[in-house]
Amino acid sequence: MFPAGFKMTPPDSSAMDDDVFDFTDSEDADAPFPPTYMVVRFAAATQPRAIAWLVDKIRGPRSHGGAELLVRRQHTEPGDGVILHVSASCRKLLELAEEMELKKRDQAGLMREFIFAHLRDFVGEKGDREDLLTTAERQLIVRHELDNIRALSEDPSIPGYPNFRMYEGQSIVQVMIHRALVMSMYPLHDKENLKRLSSKWYYSKHQPIEDIRLYFGEAVALYFKFLDFYTVKLLFPLTLLGVLQMALSTLETLPFFCVCNVIAVTVFLEVWRRRSNEAAFQWGTIGMTSLDEPRPNFHGTMMVDTVTGRLLPQFPRRTTYIRMYCVTLPIVVVCLFLAFLVMLLSFYAEERLTQMSKDPESGVTYVTVMIPSVVYSILVSVVNLYYRKLATYLTEWENHRTQSQFERHRVIKLVAFEFVNTFMALFYIAFIYQDMDMLRSQLATMLIILQVVNNVQEAVLPLLMRYLSKGAGVGEHEAAAGGAGGADGEVSSAGGLRYRGGSATLSHELYPGVPEVLQGIPELDADDPRQQQALTEGSMDEYEGTYDDYLEVFIQFGYVFLFSAVYPQAALWALFNNVIESRVDAFKLCRLYQRPLARRVKDTGAWQRAFEALGAMSIITNCGLLCVSPPLRGRFPELSQTQWVLRWMVVEHLLMGVRYVLHQAIPDKPEWVRVALAKLNYQSKLALRKERALKRRMSSRRSARPVPVPKAPAH
Amino acid sequence: MFPAGFKMTPPDSSAMDDDVFDFTDSEDADAPFPPTYMVVRFAAATQPRAIAWLVDKIRGPRSHGGAELLVRRQHTEPGDGVILHVSASCRKLLELAEEMELKKRDQAGLMREFIFAHLRDFVGEKGDREDLLTTAERQLIVRHELDNIRALSEDPSIPGYPNFRMYEGQSIVQVMIHRALVMSMYPLHDKENLKRLSSKWYYSKHQPIEDIRLYFGEAVALYFKFLDFYTVKLLFPLTLLGVLQMALSTLETLPFFCVCNVIAVTVFLEVWRRRSNEAAFQWGTIGMTSLDEPRPNFHGTMMVDTVTGRLLPQFPRRTTYIRMYCVTLPIVVVCLFLAFLVMLLSFYAEERLTQMSKDPESGVTYVTVMIPSVVYSILVSVVNLYYRKLATYLTEWENHRTQSQFERHRVIKLVAFEFVNTFMALFYIAFIYQDMDMLRSQLATMLIILQVVNNVQEAVLPLLMRYLSKGAGVGEHEAAAGGAGGADGEVSSAGGLRYRGGSATLSHELYPGVPEVLQGIPELDADDPRQQQALTEGSMDEYEGTYDDYLEVFIQFGYVFLFSAVYPQAALWALFNNVIESRVDAFKLCRLYQRPLARRVKDTGAWQRAFEALGAMSIITNCGLLCVSPPLRGRFPELSQTQWVLRWMVVEHLLMGVRYVLHQAIPDKPEWVRVALAKLNYQSKLALRKERALKRRMSSRRSARPVPVPKAPAH
Repeated sequence: MFPAGFKMTPPDSSAMDDDVFDFTDSEDADAPFPPTYMVVRFAAATQPRAIAWLVDKIRGPRSHGGAELLVRRQHTEPGDGVILHVSASCRKLLELAEEMELKKRDQAGLMREFIFAHLRDFVGEKGDREDLLTTAERQLIVRHELDNIRALSEDPSIPGYPNFRMYEGQSIVQVMIHRALVMSMYPLHDKENLKRLSSKWYYSKHQPIEDIRLYFGEAVALYFKFLDFYTVKLLFPLTLLGVLQMALSTLETLPFFCVCNVIAVTVFLEVWRRRSNEAAFQWGTIGMTSLDEPRPNFHGTMMVDTVTGRLLPQFPRRTTYIRMYCVTLPIVVVCLFLAFLVMLLSFYAEERLTQMSKDPESGVTYVTVMIPSVVYSILVSVVNLYYRKLATYLTEWENHRTQSQFERHRVIKLVAFEFVNTFMALFYIAFIYQDMDMLRSQLATMLIILQVVNNVQEAVLPLLMRYLSKGAGVGEHEAAAGGAGGADGEVSSAGGLRYRGGSATLSHELYPGVPEVLQGIPELDADDPRQQQALTEGSMDEYEGTYDDYLEVFIQFGYVFLFSAVYPQAALWALFNNVIESRVDAFKLCRLYQRPLARRVKDTGAWQRAFEALGAMSIITNCGLLCVSPPLRGRFPELSQTQWVLRWMVVEHLLMGVRYVLHQAIPDKPEWVRVALAKLNYQSKLALRKERALKRRMSSRRSARPVPVPKAPAH
Repeated sequence: MFPAGFKMTPPDSSAMDDDVFDFTDSEDADAPFPPTYMVVRFAAATQPRAIAWLVDKIRGPRSHGGAELLVRRQHTEPGDGVILHVSASCRKLLELAEEMELKKRDQAGLMREFIFAHLRDFVGEKGDREDLLTTAERQLIVRHELDNIRALSEDPSIPGYPNFRMYEGQSIVQVMIHRALVMSMYPLHDKENLKRLSSKWYYSKHQPIEDIRLYFGEAVALYFKFLDFYTVKLLFPLTLLGVLQMALSTLETLPFFCVCNVIAVTVFLEVWRRRSNEAAFQWGTIGMTSLDEPRPNFHGTMMVDTVTGRLLPQFPRRTTYIRMYCVTLPIVVVCLFLAFLVMLLSFYAEERLTQMSKDPESGVTYVTVMIPSVVYSILVSVVNLYYRKLATYLTEWENHRTQSQFERHRVIKLVAFEFVNTFMALFYIAFIYQDMDMLRSQLATMLIILQVVNNVQEAVLPLLMRYLSKGAGVGEHEAAAGGAGGADGEVSSAGGLRYRGGSATLSHELYPGVPEVLQGIPELDADDPRQQQALTEGSMDEYEGTYDDYLEVFIQFGYVFLFSAVYPQAALWALFNNVIESRVDAFKLCRLYQRPLARRVKDTGAWQRAFEALGAMSIITNCGLLCVSPPLRGRFPELSQTQWVLRWMVVEHLLMGVRYVLHQAIPDKPEWVRVALAKLNYQSKLALRKERALKRRMSSRRSARPVPVPKAPAH
């Protein structure tokens, strides 16, 4: 049998002080059901046997591969899919928090791994243990436990689906999601906290990063921190500089402005790296490595992990590398090349049509000339969708161990493609056509379209769509569940929606439409507001992570800095947009999407590199643009064309050199973070030493035999 | 009073098992004096009071700021400076090894910090504790202890020298060296081991890296590892490729050859980084950080170290940065600029003279034309000497905490200057004159001169000099002490020169010429061969670290790769040279220099970056050379000059891109090192956790009071 030991007992249960808190909370039908942390929604066609089997696993003891969580079934209409509410007792959550090595701030203000036996260090003498974990953390813990229900050797396939085979150690929930038996799995919003957060968020000048982190997790908080930092520390000063440059409006200041820009970008990215490391330290995520616990979809043979000694799926890193470099890389390169080719084709077609339109007999009108551009735009967005699926599929297949690695490799693939689609056309205009006016107008159009379209798409459209598709009826429902929590939700003074104290109804009578095997699962009260909330939020769109948000900033960043030599005003537009953008994003997250699961990150991952690559590229493009700019060239008629080009080449290389020196000279982490990490490291080392000394002494007690003393020293 | 506590008791003396070895070795006049680990040679004029005071410190107990080492005075002629032999008991050495966190391989083959109480884990049940530490390590330990004798508040100045003031916590030995009271301080060679090492070293195909490390320490071993790796893995294949290219001798293959070169360099440097990290892991130096124990010359106010909690000199890092960027950087830049200017001047003078020489009436002959070059060469070598002093002084003044940081910043300053002096002239010829033949002949000359001169200078000249200056008498002495260890040294079978068993003579009778205060120091036997050895090796030159050796490779690397487009044969010469070079260096270290003190390093420091910078530059220069090469240009007459330049620019940027991608894609550390480090980290973390759990439990025993159980859960 497959031992569930790899996630069984907390690492040092031996050191557990059972006298710290004297409470019992085994599942009791009369006890109130705690808040729902995850909603699991099955497809209507899913066989009741499979559902009942999963519920047994969720509620079952760990010794039998269960998760020891609490489950309630929601009252649903016949024909609808089954909806389960999953929760956990407070004690269980705290135990799991220890197991997941969650970091919490202790009473001394130090961020350290939570240990259940030290509960008092974290909540203080009078503190409430219920307050220690945020709802985001509880949801994360419950989701982690659900994902970690793994197939035993006695479960070759899902009951009722003999074809849906599983290998030992596979995540059952992930298989059921993959097989579309589970339609969705999502946490619920915490109305009270959300209300407090959003009121703070929409109207304050700076982003309330810490509140965002507590509610949405580190990944979302880091995105907003980045957006804020980028807007305030980079765009704002550069906008002022740009305005100054426009006011002076002399040609000679333009190169100076460009140099300022590219150096500012370099410094900004270096300083951001420091900031992000600082945040990661404060959030306790700085120690995340690629050898951490694998993500749920990581597959491999169950083996003893070299680092932790626990039983975990293992997959040779070499195979991942082979897949990456021998399969994925060629496919991606071909895709990029095709995208480039399509772009060239559209340019060629447009050019031909423009020439033909000069001949009135050809029948080519002004409108016809625009066809290639329009077709190209549509094609790009369609192909983009497919490419995104391809990239996700390939990255999944590469089988990276951690979520961060997975995200990084997925982002690299996607960004390269987006880069070709977005910027190659502009490069073509700038350096092949060398038409600066066309470039400028194109830039202005794309920048404004990007920003308007995005904001509309992100906020206005979803609101409108929902209003149109669901009509007033559902809208009312939503308003009741969403806005008026105070009216029917019994808001507690401590915050958060207090759940109904009523006991669960064990449905011994046969409800019509509920299959017999499911009637063993206790049901929620008929008037529990969570049932409506689960339905409403289940119909909302899922927030797919920060990818699209970063991408938007990335493209904007490219528009502003790659071509600042021809369009210095871009920074102003970007600044203006970002002030709105951050609010739109906040609104989107708070109101339009299902609550996303908190995700822990230690940095912006591939985005840091992507932005750095753009920074380096901006040196090349700006020097190139200034070099091909006719007015500037006109000032130096005495230089031959080659001399002129060489001069700019020297400037470019010097700037690259400056960039390299800055990169080397600015340390990645602030001094205090380095010292704090070194301190922790030193203390751990000492502790390990002591532990080994202790162990040795114990073993030497057993076989105490003097070692022969050497007769004569030798050197 | 200044507490000597910062280096007093070993970190966990509480866990020490005193029953492991039952031996006593307090200093006993009748006990044999162990091998000399450090020789301290005073100036003849040094006041005996000062010497006696230092000896008291060296022998004194730690509780009074002493080092608890053993000292013997060498019998010297009247008028000569006093020479002291410093040693330590085996037990003391092992205790200090623990304190210095020296890493040793235990019986399980694992590299870990030596702990005295675990001695048996390291030497095994039957092992000899004398064999555990190599002589290099013993010397390092003794030197470390000597350097760590620090001035107490009761020592305001050196006795007999009221003007030589010291601040509390300053290293006394360093002050005495600085004030020229101590002329030199050096370890002695270990004839037997040296003989074994050198016979292996001179004749084996590969460098015996592990033996070198054990005898000369990590810094020297890493240099030879680098030299070996560079010669075998980079130069050898490229030579083959170069020969192939010469055989084909078609113009079209040259660009291909260049591209191969620059990509090979990039890959080589990345792989070297991996190798060096691997070695650092195996040698136990990978964990060295800039927060490690400060180097002896680091000064600052004595304060509690944030990381270790020990009392150590502290100096604000910010001040170092300010000094670096506000003072040193401008000075260095000015120096570089001046060097550049001097080079231009010499070129200008040469050009003028060449023009004048065409006019027979000017009296300028062929010889006169060469004057500027000669003057320039002499000027460069003279200025170099002064610049080196300046760089050392500035780096010392910047006050870097660790030896590695100090070395890195010193190397950066020196390499920049060497770069300007060595390569700028070639750049000038290549890109301003664009005279490829001149470049080629210049390269060939400089490469061969460099190699011949260096080898002569390093090996032949010192041998000759010594022979000439000292005559046959000293030569015999040396031969006796050096080669014929077996004849008079009582070679033990265990290896190494066994010291004479005779007891030290406490000179109660008054020797003529020996001041009274020094007569309390026991003297070595009159026939102890170490006395002659100390004199002979004291007169040898000091090995000043690996800087000059790396520099030689660096310059060669530059000649070979920066200009491989015009002179592909360079690799062959370099290969040929390095085969000899490694032997010459080996000979130099074994026979010509004082034994250097082992130095621990975790990587090649600034050299890695310097070579990487050359690698990047080689892309630029090779593309540039191919671009200005007339024969290649002749093949593409249809391209305009600007188009031609732009084409090469694109190639250059593509290669830079490839370099960047390779740099990102090749991980710094091999997978197994990463896993091993992660494992150690994980174990330390667990140990710290347990320790904290234990502490908490103990404190909670005292105040066991139940925390109020919350009445109602809230979310």
